[in-house]
Amino acid sequence: MLTSTRTTRIEWCDCDPAGIIFYPRYFEIFDTSTTVLLERALGMNKIDYLKAYDFAGHPLVQSRARFRVPTRFGDEVTIETTLVDIGRSSFKIEHRLQKADTLAVEGFETRVWVIRQAGARRLKSQPIPPDVVARLKA
Amino acid sequence: MLTSTRTTRIEWCDCDPAGIIFYPRYFEIFDTSTTVLLERALGMNKIDYLKAYDFAGHPLVQSRARFRVPTRFGDEVTIETTLVDIGRSSFKIEHRLQKADTLAVEGFETRVWVIRQAGARRLKSQPIPPDVVARLKA
Amino acid sequence: MLTSTRTTRIEWCDCDPAGIIFYPRYFEIFDTSTTVLLERALGMNKIDYLKAYDFAGHPLVQSRARFRVPTRFGDEVTIETTLVDIGRSSFKIEHRLQKADTLAVEGFETRVWVIRQAGARRLKSQPIPPDVVARLKA
Amino acid sequence: MLTSTRTTRIEWCDCDPAGIIFYPRYFEIFDTSTTVLLERALGMNKIDYLKAYDFAGHPLVQSRARFRVPTRFGDEVTIETTLVDIGRSSFKIEHRLQKADTLAVEGFETRVWVIRQAGARRLKSQPIPPDVVARLKA
Repeated sequence: MLTSTRTTRIEWCDCDPAGIIFYPRYFEIFDTSTTVLLERALGMNKIDYLKAYDFAGHPLVQSRARFRVPTRFGDEVTIETTLVDIGRSSFKIEHRLQKADTLAVEGFETRVWVIRQAGARRLKSQPIPPDVVARLKA
Repeated sequence: MLTSTRTTRIEWCDCDPAGIIFYPRYFEIFDTSTTVLLERALGMNKIDYLKAYDFAGHPLVQSRARFRVPTRFGDEVTIETTLVDIGRSSFKIEHRLQKADTLAVEGFETRVWVIRQAGARRLKSQPIPPDVVARLKA
Repeated sequence: MLTSTRTTRIEWCDCDPAGIIFYPRYFEIFDTSTTVLLERALGMNKIDYLKAYDFAGHPLVQSRARFRVPTRFGDEVTIETTLVDIGRSSFKIEHRLQKADTLAVEGFETRVWVIRQAGARRLKSQPIPPDVVARLKA
Repeated sequence: MLTSTRTTRIEWCDCDPAGIIFYPRYFEIFDTSTTVLLERALGMNKIDYLKAYDFAGHPLVQSRARFRVPTRFGDEVTIETTLVDIGRSSFKIEHRLQKADTLAVEGFETRVWVIRQAGARRLKSQPIPPDVVARLKA
């Protein structure tokens, strides 16, 4: 299955008065990790793949996370991101964020492929292009 | 069951290049909503209830959300926050975020009551004080 | 001169491990305050005024702030926002953020009116429409 | 003069509906860059240097930025951070953020060394320890 790993560092700006990461920051980290997975699979940056496939993005319809061990500013973490399922217009992603050898957070996303309807603000789900499916399943 | 409702407005700073809210912002909104629920139940601000009960906060161990309808900058939203379960050292919260009459997002949290261990950076779960339990169950 | 006042509350999610607001949050607060000033002057929400005047926004070319007194989660603050100068394609805004009777932060912005060039990602400054100038000078 | 350079990437989560970075994110980037400068000069992470010198942080008293060229998600940027002045209890930092060979943003900070007053929430400025001054001037 398609997997991508990246590292980042938890920063002061990610942490709250308890001195640990403010948990919504994990969802920002996961969002970037999903972008990186797609960028690597499609061979181009997000700004370019949105244009190449003429779509508006891959927003979430569901998100879930389990927070096992808190992280703090200065912690180097590794995020392993895996495409676990792909449907007609949606796909599922799992993230495992580790601090050294400890699994700190698990994240689960269901995302949908959307286009912007002509002349409208409205976003509408759309079948994932066959070329993208092929690259994600590779 | 203990419920609290507040309103807020989705702002430009909450939105991403797709023109809709960047979904981690919902978790910030939910976090503030949980704070407001506790502030109302305990009759004091968070900065004071952390001191009064001498604890370090109520971080999440699990979080889940279903995103039904996107929101955009300028949208006025209402968040209804309910305490749905309370255990020995943890409690569960549900949020229903509405845009006019439409349920836009549902959020589900499991939080734990933690103290800071003497002289240590480490957070440790702790039984919720009986007085707090009584006020949350009221 | 055109002035607009709003109130907000500093939240846990705005604060850092020192227990005070993480200062970039002030710039988010100021950004929303500028939006509110324009919304009130133009009589419509930002999502609508961007459309009505067919422009891409009013990004900053300069920003400055003086932080006099720190704020903490739970602090109710008032932001007074004033248009202090308006040029051909740019305008200047000042913000005074108060905590009770104390001036906590002063913010200064120079913003430019921009359009998106046809078929391009590039933003370009543009004269502010006379109708907007008239309403801002009113 | 003490200088430190790091690179980062502007992400989707940093950008607003205009498709460019939401400018307060630059101040988050600068804050981390200042931390990195101090970490390198003092030879330890922020979580450790706060403890080693027993202080509460180095919050800003003034901040200023000039935004010359917008950045977008996917842009790799380099931030050069320099200590330009050091006083008794405050110091000045300059940041130059480049996108390829173009200077995109300049940032200017005045920061103050603060301790937490015994038993109080109040932060108070304090002379920078001679050992820190020596390392920053090196």
